[in-house]
Amino acid sequence: MSQAANSRQINDVSTYMQDVGRRARTASRALAAADTGAKNAALHGIADDLDAQREHLIEANRLDLEAGRAKGLDAALLDRLELDHARIDSMIDGLRQIVALPDPIGEIFDMKFRPSGIQVGRMRVPLGVVGIIYESRPNVTADAAALCLKSGNATVLRGGSEAFHSNQAIADSIRRGLDRAGLPADAVQVVATTDRAAVDLMVTMPESIDVIIPRGGKGLIERISATARVPVIKHLHGVCHVYVDDEAEPQKAFDIALNAKTQRYGTCNTMETLLVNATVADDFLPGMAAAYRDKGVELRGCTQTCRILDGNCIAATDADWDEEYLAPILSIRVVADIDEAMAHIAQHGSLHTESIVTENITKARRFLREVDASSVMVNASTRFADGFEYGLGAEIGISTDKFHARGPVGLEGLTSVKYIVLGDGHVRT
Amino acid sequence: MSQAANSRQINDVSTYMQDVGRRARTASRALAAADTGAKNAALHGIADDLDAQREHLIEANRLDLEAGRAKGLDAALLDRLELDHARIDSMIDGLRQIVALPDPIGEIFDMKFRPSGIQVGRMRVPLGVVGIIYESRPNVTADAAALCLKSGNATVLRGGSEAFHSNQAIADSIRRGLDRAGLPADAVQVVATTDRAAVDLMVTMPESIDVIIPRGGKGLIERISATARVPVIKHLHGVCHVYVDDEAEPQKAFDIALNAKTQRYGTCNTMETLLVNATVADDFLPGMAAAYRDKGVELRGCTQTCRILDGNCIAATDADWDEEYLAPILSIRVVADIDEAMAHIAQHGSLHTESIVTENITKARRFLREVDASSVMVNASTRFADGFEYGLGAEIGISTDKFHARGPVGLEGLTSVKYIVLGDGHVRT
Repeated sequence: MSQAANSRQINDVSTYMQDVGRRARTASRALAAADTGAKNAALHGIADDLDAQREHLIEANRLDLEAGRAKGLDAALLDRLELDHARIDSMIDGLRQIVALPDPIGEIFDMKFRPSGIQVGRMRVPLGVVGIIYESRPNVTADAAALCLKSGNATVLRGGSEAFHSNQAIADSIRRGLDRAGLPADAVQVVATTDRAAVDLMVTMPESIDVIIPRGGKGLIERISATARVPVIKHLHGVCHVYVDDEAEPQKAFDIALNAKTQRYGTCNTMETLLVNATVADDFLPGMAAAYRDKGVELRGCTQTCRILDGNCIAATDADWDEEYLAPILSIRVVADIDEAMAHIAQHGSLHTESIVTENITKARRFLREVDASSVMVNASTRFADGFEYGLGAEIGISTDKFHARGPVGLEGLTSVKYIVLGDGHVRT
Repeated sequence: MSQAANSRQINDVSTYMQDVGRRARTASRALAAADTGAKNAALHGIADDLDAQREHLIEANRLDLEAGRAKGLDAALLDRLELDHARIDSMIDGLRQIVALPDPIGEIFDMKFRPSGIQVGRMRVPLGVVGIIYESRPNVTADAAALCLKSGNATVLRGGSEAFHSNQAIADSIRRGLDRAGLPADAVQVVATTDRAAVDLMVTMPESIDVIIPRGGKGLIERISATARVPVIKHLHGVCHVYVDDEAEPQKAFDIALNAKTQRYGTCNTMETLLVNATVADDFLPGMAAAYRDKGVELRGCTQTCRILDGNCIAATDADWDEEYLAPILSIRVVADIDEAMAHIAQHGSLHTESIVTENITKARRFLREVDASSVMVNASTRFADGFEYGLGAEIGISTDKFHARGPVGLEGLTSVKYIVLGDGHVRT
């Protein structure tokens, strides 16, 4: 049965979600045992089906866009919601790229003989069932399903209500692709109700869902974290710093500080606060500030910064040091040394991405060792913190937690490991 | 100040625990940066101090034993509670063994150059603050503190009220050992109140405690899991199986089935249910049953088992297949084939340890791949599922969850990783 046939009002959301969970759990067993060929065939099949169904996808998307306009959604939200041929191409490309990634499942490593004679090692296995809760972009439906599928996990996807028809149309293509490859169609289920109770149920079903990955704004993620009884892979926000040391090479510091702030403003790995060593602040800041001014970046500085920049700077308030601007705004603080820089980062950072610019290897090693963040960098722009840039192939999200996956989460972050033991009739004495 | 001086009634447990948490968080930063030499010096210092304080430890333990007898604790509990010279020796040995283990912290791996020119890899780092909640054995205080210390984590320990004086005396030795090595004494704190509210507070302080490891009975662990807002590394129970395949070598099957049940009855990796292929059940079961009878093991079988054993077997009820006996009792079920065996394990297993006995490599590979458990074995006794046997050096617990650590948890399970990026002024284009 097509999921689209299900897109009516569902009266008993709790019973419906329990059924979704049970189907996912059952499908996850088949998927864990599926070989790489079958999973890749399904990914190609989904890509082919999306390609064949372009007009249908665009038609379904038109329903969402019309409803969105009627509801008065703003232009940015409508843009994120829209599916055109270029975006369908990009979904299809994404699926085929995941085919090309090595299958992490079944990898055996660390096999060692023990004095008892047994051979012990580990095998990489799927997590089981992954729940994804996301907002308006319908492409997440295909991207997230593909990463979970390749890593042997069943998926329960719950997209935003404004993308309901688009998501259901993509879900139909996914089901057909799975079915043609001989994999259970329940391996990827897109929740067919816009009732928000479905989200509350998903995050409290540990018997059916092994991990929740929320993708969306801070509000969504805070709400989910507060109620979840299932582990959540998440990052709340990105307050990233670049520290320009007194032994920084000035050109590198300039390039990195400019790139980390201005290459894109709306991303979580964008620098929000620049820390500058007091010894070099007088030399470094005026040229840097001029470059930011050319890009239209508003500067909010500490007292020393404002003195050096002499008027071309707004006085920062305490709140500025904790702010994720996601906009052409930068806070700047002059610090005495690396210790003060690291103390500022420990107090105000969001454990996301931190970078030092220095030629001094001792300070570089200290920063790498002591700064607590999902990515720590030397002489590189914070903008590199990204699954593609790190070579993971794709990312399903970024985690700033220390438990399980940390940093950009690719296929490996969607797996677990189990111990395997090979003997020859061995018993313990 | 000695923690023993704190062992009075604490009036405001909430304020006290918040203070403990804050101190732990502060100490965790120093510990994360501590080098291997300092951590090993502290471990040796604690061992030396325990050695020097033997009489004091035994005296403190006597207070606990007397209070326990007065409260009417049973003999098994009093035995677990007792500290004698042999047990103090074993604590001291345990500490020195952890000195000998390689320091996991700061290990850098997977460093690779990316097309952009940056070099990306990962560095192993501590989790931060580990909370341990445990029952009567006072040796856990030293063992758990040592593993956390070596892996760079601060620890908050909350032992059972019946071991209060013993735990506080061990805590004093730990503080002196830390202090002499120049590490913060707050790196290991033993909660100085027997108020149970302290436990409820510990598991709901994510700002101060990064992970909770409960060590004790199923009741303790269920209570903690139900209320925790902090990740918990745990296993609830161990319902482990051995499946004797029709292509098993009979002597190996006999040795493994006997060892897995009878080498020790009270451990979580003891087999609770034996699954036997129908083709070999008539040949295998009578001799096996005789061996169990010699050991005094009560047998509870399915209809076919009882028919084969002809009276030397009690009819198993449905409840038997889910029971962790922790006693000389074994349930036995005859199954048609490996599929029925794996279906039984999927339904009744506790994701702990599962073993197949077979000479057939295809079935062995299927079992390894498809059985979902923290340890999966071929031709080996389930009793091997243990940190020492696996070469981890020591274990702080066993996890049957898929998230983060799985199986026996040693030093590596107490760590996280962060991404590190080395550039030479690289920016993203």
